[in-house]
Amino acid sequence: MTSPLHIGLAGLGTVGAGVVKLLDANAGLIERRANRPIIVTAVSARDRSRERGVDLARFAWVDDATELAERDDVDVVVELIGGSDGPALVLARETLKAGKAFVTANKAMLAHHGLDLAQLAENTGAALKYEAAVAGGIPVIKGLREGAAANRIERVYGILNGTCNYILSRMEAEKLSFAAVLADAQRLGFAEADPSFDIDGIDAAHKLSILAAIAFGARIDFAHVAVEGIRHVAAVDIDHAATLGFRIKLVGLATEVDGELFQRVHPCLVPLAHPLAHVDGSLNAVVAEGDFVGRLFFSGRGAGEGPTASAVVADLIDVARGEVGPAFAMPTARLAALAPADTAAHVGRFYLRVMVADRPGVLAELTAALRDAGVSIESLIQRGPSGGEVHVVMVTHAVRQSAIAAALDRMATSNSVTAPPMMMHILDF
Amino acid sequence: MTSPLHIGLAGLGTVGAGVVKLLDANAGLIERRANRPIIVTAVSARDRSRERGVDLARFAWVDDATELAERDDVDVVVELIGGSDGPALVLARETLKAGKAFVTANKAMLAHHGLDLAQLAENTGAALKYEAAVAGGIPVIKGLREGAAANRIERVYGILNGTCNYILSRMEAEKLSFAAVLADAQRLGFAEADPSFDIDGIDAAHKLSILAAIAFGARIDFAHVAVEGIRHVAAVDIDHAATLGFRIKLVGLATEVDGELFQRVHPCLVPLAHPLAHVDGSLNAVVAEGDFVGRLFFSGRGAGEGPTASAVVADLIDVARGEVGPAFAMPTARLAALAPADTAAHVGRFYLRVMVADRPGVLAELTAALRDAGVSIESLIQRGPSGGEVHVVMVTHAVRQSAIAAALDRMATSNSVTAPPMMMHILDF
Repeated sequence: MTSPLHIGLAGLGTVGAGVVKLLDANAGLIERRANRPIIVTAVSARDRSRERGVDLARFAWVDDATELAERDDVDVVVELIGGSDGPALVLARETLKAGKAFVTANKAMLAHHGLDLAQLAENTGAALKYEAAVAGGIPVIKGLREGAAANRIERVYGILNGTCNYILSRMEAEKLSFAAVLADAQRLGFAEADPSFDIDGIDAAHKLSILAAIAFGARIDFAHVAVEGIRHVAAVDIDHAATLGFRIKLVGLATEVDGELFQRVHPCLVPLAHPLAHVDGSLNAVVAEGDFVGRLFFSGRGAGEGPTASAVVADLIDVARGEVGPAFAMPTARLAALAPADTAAHVGRFYLRVMVADRPGVLAELTAALRDAGVSIESLIQRGPSGGEVHVVMVTHAVRQSAIAAALDRMATSNSVTAPPMMMHILDF
Repeated sequence: MTSPLHIGLAGLGTVGAGVVKLLDANAGLIERRANRPIIVTAVSARDRSRERGVDLARFAWVDDATELAERDDVDVVVELIGGSDGPALVLARETLKAGKAFVTANKAMLAHHGLDLAQLAENTGAALKYEAAVAGGIPVIKGLREGAAANRIERVYGILNGTCNYILSRMEAEKLSFAAVLADAQRLGFAEADPSFDIDGIDAAHKLSILAAIAFGARIDFAHVAVEGIRHVAAVDIDHAATLGFRIKLVGLATEVDGELFQRVHPCLVPLAHPLAHVDGSLNAVVAEGDFVGRLFFSGRGAGEGPTASAVVADLIDVARGEVGPAFAMPTARLAALAPADTAAHVGRFYLRVMVADRPGVLAELTAALRDAGVSIESLIQRGPSGGEVHVVMVTHAVRQSAIAAALDRMATSNSVTAPPMMMHILDF
């Protein structure tokens, strides 16, 4: 047996405590699999006295997390502080500069500083590992980085935020409004007091930018992810989508088109025949489509104490085994600097819901606006009137998004249209 | 850039040709990901002149595959010959003895000789890799061995044979008999001329024994997999199962119970709410349930040129990166020698279909046989008569399999029962 791998743990929230519990519970098994013990030696958190359900007395306590990078009794620093900058980033830099392995669940930091950190890691030969940063316990980083490594990836996409998926699933199952489900989710602890990172799609965008970098061998480019959240999805949209054979999911999607990187997070109509349509509640799922392997589908629990700790410790076992390699699957010098694609040039089918006044000629007005923009209608449902309003729901044939935008601009000038139209993408692969 | 990794390829059937095509098609990408070129230098197959759609003139040709193990221009041997013994096994032994990496898709050989080969690999420090042996292109070996490594795995199970899943899916969709679909599948090339390895569950059992060894840190034990194929599944069973809210799938399942290894391949009723129920056609899927991560679900294409080549080349990229480690995730000395569990002691719900003559008292006779064996009935459907026969379909409450067996023995003595009863397990997790 080789010597133990010594861990310095920064951040003792739910996931940090979970890592300690996991290393305790499965110590024997982990030692067999890693071929050496993995032992926490030092910890750091904001509040030393908080009750966390784990015995911390056996670990050295440091007030300043940065000290973990310097300690002789720490081989690997695990960062579970969070935040794209601040103490987490300082700790990452100091750890990698010291040539020590750095394991993190911090998607925001990777999205903003991933390339810099990967370069720092390369300079000192240190490992930078982050399986827990995307899709919690599901080994999608490994799946893309190694499992699908032989393939040119055609696209990578998935359900990357459990809070949004939970809200959309409950809106559908219980026919409730977004606001009602969000309030209840906050009460139950499934959504944060400030939910905007989740429901506005930013968390999913952080994760998508990481997946895209690995899938396409590209420099991470969070700044150019087009992001749209789920606040404006109405219960009626979920209902209309079901009538048309779809479920609404918040989907993060990245693809490479003619050397340009297309990245978008958006609520999306997913056909019932697609496996993503059946990923419910707080589950996450990732699909990668490769030129030789075809479609790979991974699903599981994307957040929470156990799954996230599972991913952190998987990284530690890799470090213990000496199986590390470059952070983004290839040396940073080999990562391509892909230009961002114009997401408005996207061609696909669209869902449109337009609320109109109940009077003659309105439908002719809508369909003329679409015709003049070159948008062809595949199916149309008119429902109502209820409360003096009529829902007109349309699925278009495949068309450039800019044409839809032109038609919507024209509708916005009509005094028959009583509310801003709702437009969503349809997932057609 | 480090020096190229040189490959000796034994076996040039569909998958072997696929590996050559993949290494050609994605050479640049693979070089970036592996940080060195991966180049075939020598090949071997039975028939040199056969047209395979790839240019072999650039490779050295050897008539005896074993020679690949000895050549100076071969760093890694890829074995795609097949067969549990014979030339594939000789090649594996010679390659590993020579201290060279060995990559294979040969599930039968691993099921029978995996432990010996892992020991040989350990002796010389050579890598033994076999992602392609289970579930084709889906990275389940990596997912279990590394992705889920922090967990005590509670059970691992899945749809491991694409031919069976294809047959069962078509039987359901087209309401055809097993024999009719099998004949058509053979005509279309989806089933072998001698289909018994697939339809009798042996191929799935090979794969299950490999998954179980990794999941439970156990010595591979193919001999004790209880195997039951799909020949006796009738179209009416699929129909009755649908009525009851299930789909019939051939499921391989392994679990560890009190230090004993339970391994079984059997046709099984899968509830529609379970993700395995929606894995159709020739797709494969694997579920691993871990104590911290919860349920992980992987699906994709389990066979064929592209997916299998994808898995083989993923292994080669791991070898090129130096990321290898022990074949069964831990040194062989650490693998447990688990005793086989008595699968008849299994407790679960069962599906029973009994064909009976249409006369008074028959139902009382059947239910008495079940009552006397201690089997409690959850639901019962009686259908017919048609052609003088009545179908009695029952779902039992959870009960020990031996009790079901006792009830079936008693029914076999009844002259009201016109055909051997059909019994299938219900997947209840």
